[in-house]
Amino acid sequence: MRTIDEIGTPALLLEHGILERNLERMRAQLGRLGVALRPHVKTCKSIEVARLALAGQPGGITVSTLKEAEYFAAHGVRDILYAVGIAPGKLAGVANLRKRGIDVCVILDNAAAAAALIAGAEQLETVFPVLIEIDVDGQRAGIAPDGASLPELVRLLGESPRVELRGVMTHAGKSYDCRTAIELRDMAERERAGVVLAASRMSAAGFPATVISVGSTPTALAAETLEGVTEVRAGVYMFNDLVMAGIGVCSTDDIAMSVLVSVIGHQPDRGWIITDGGWMALSRDRGTAAQARDQGYGLVCDAAGAPVPEDMIVISASQEHGIIARRDGGSVNMGDYPVGRLLRILPNHACATAAQHAGYEVLANDGAVVATWPRINGW
Amino acid sequence: MRTIDEIGTPALLLEHGILERNLERMRAQLGRLGVALRPHVKTCKSIEVARLALAGQPGGITVSTLKEAEYFAAHGVRDILYAVGIAPGKLAGVANLRKRGIDVCVILDNAAAAAALIAGAEQLETVFPVLIEIDVDGQRAGIAPDGASLPELVRLLGESPRVELRGVMTHAGKSYDCRTAIELRDMAERERAGVVLAASRMSAAGFPATVISVGSTPTALAAETLEGVTEVRAGVYMFNDLVMAGIGVCSTDDIAMSVLVSVIGHQPDRGWIITDGGWMALSRDRGTAAQARDQGYGLVCDAAGAPVPEDMIVISASQEHGIIARRDGGSVNMGDYPVGRLLRILPNHACATAAQHAGYEVLANDGAVVATWPRINGW
Repeated sequence: MRTIDEIGTPALLLEHGILERNLERMRAQLGRLGVALRPHVKTCKSIEVARLALAGQPGGITVSTLKEAEYFAAHGVRDILYAVGIAPGKLAGVANLRKRGIDVCVILDNAAAAAALIAGAEQLETVFPVLIEIDVDGQRAGIAPDGASLPELVRLLGESPRVELRGVMTHAGKSYDCRTAIELRDMAERERAGVVLAASRMSAAGFPATVISVGSTPTALAAETLEGVTEVRAGVYMFNDLVMAGIGVCSTDDIAMSVLVSVIGHQPDRGWIITDGGWMALSRDRGTAAQARDQGYGLVCDAAGAPVPEDMIVISASQEHGIIARRDGGSVNMGDYPVGRLLRILPNHACATAAQHAGYEVLANDGAVVATWPRINGW
Repeated sequence: MRTIDEIGTPALLLEHGILERNLERMRAQLGRLGVALRPHVKTCKSIEVARLALAGQPGGITVSTLKEAEYFAAHGVRDILYAVGIAPGKLAGVANLRKRGIDVCVILDNAAAAAALIAGAEQLETVFPVLIEIDVDGQRAGIAPDGASLPELVRLLGESPRVELRGVMTHAGKSYDCRTAIELRDMAERERAGVVLAASRMSAAGFPATVISVGSTPTALAAETLEGVTEVRAGVYMFNDLVMAGIGVCSTDDIAMSVLVSVIGHQPDRGWIITDGGWMALSRDRGTAAQARDQGYGLVCDAAGAPVPEDMIVISASQEHGIIARRDGGSVNMGDYPVGRLLRILPNHACATAAQHAGYEVLANDGAVVATWPRINGW
């Protein structure tokens, strides 16, 4: 039996049991709401994780890069939504995948991108399936569900023989700013209502939507109804993280991913324990900085995954050094944290932390390292 | 001729001419001070860049991980300082490299790590060269140059037949908080004086130091004398970044590295341009947040590398989206930034941004993409 003592530090650990429990929770929630799940694989970037997430689901995934699309297609996934506004320079890559029989659907939110897509489709002698991106929260991309430009864009796309206009999608990224169950529920409803309104305006313009897609982990888990929605995209729910725990979507016990680090020294006068887990292993993400409970660069757990009794966080990180201290600034018995001791750090943001690693060391419930699952990065 | 139009976005660009100029500047500075350069390759993680940095130098490098040591050793580097306090679990990896004839020297700052190293050396039937890490600024690891524990640690290491105690090293990480030329000069002197004091106390304890090592890009460039120092470690100087520009160590014209992105949409009412360069391509590093000039997630330049006239920064980033806006919040003519336009983003922190990429697209002075240099990540 291989154990975590043998894998070297820093390393990315994945608790198989917690992962399965998180997947089952989302499966149950969307089953109850009667909506299909299209897992967003930008968090895991691993075919092994995606296969578990796809169990009992229709089989389609969401990606954030062409490289993810190519990787998952190479591993047998044939239904892919590329959910970042398509850049004209990426159309050839999408067309290449489509020629291989992979159903890649793209998104866009403006007439210039639509014109570039139509011109690209003509040049590449293909047809692109498209969803129009809707903005429900003013956070990022998308067009207003009630604005004048939506029907214009619907007609521009719908009337082109180079486009298969499938519907609308949105992402309520602002759900990450929610702090209460009521705010989360209201945000989920805003996401649902916005995209359903956009779909009804598509129909009114003569082009009914067959895909009506929403997605974010907080709204997916908080939604009380998803009436009118055909699919939900979510990715972080697989692993969870401290940001999700801070929002109230999960507890720290539900975080499947952690970074294994070794103690390399101490600064007893300052109450610091120094480890080999710096920002290169943890990421620079400080997503909990604006939450009620700022977790620094991560929450410190023992080698078995339970938070240490002193309530310690990574207060500072350089490239390959992490500095651990009590949250309250109090003193720590350094003898309890000897040089060489293994600790686990729960991450602020699963997507960002996982991206710093080439794979997952998968742990069974008994602590055995039962597999190493590679993941991809890059574009 | 390959151009940046053909490489896809996001991508990491490296201006060969600026890189060479930055290398020459450090070479001239240390030549003037009469001290050897031991480049820190944790920033570049590329043998091609390291070879340029080593030209005219003694040939030794500094690394931050065992994987870097193994990679550079595989490419012919034979003199390596592993400048992160050694974890007991990594001694076998160091011993393996040493058995292949690579001179890997480790560092530590405490008796427990020293005892583990001596025990490991006995078990592995080897001898480890060691530098003692000195703390000159209270920022991270190291022991005080004037404290009682230094001579004790010197004797513990010096008297062991399993240790070749070579000397002392320090890193004035607090130089990143300097804001004026005088502060930088004083910090460089504090770094020098601290490590020289530690070396003299080593000698007094009966173990003269042959290596007296300092290093950080700001102090290396600001030092007026390095008397008593034998070598300087620095890495960021190769590329420079917005943090260095904010400290006053370089200008934005001296930043050799940038991230190429494509415009994918707009939010005209909010003055936003949306690109495909999110935090996955830029990193989550916000190193300029506490500086006088907060650069957001990066400074926006045109495709040729000159800052755009509207003075725009990346004000927000999600995984694969960057939001660009004027620093002053003013309006932008969106027609000047059409969908598909290429832009370059100068990074806050070269080490963090480069780590998000698998390699560098190397640009000649005429803008041609003349090479792709791979880089490594992980441990």
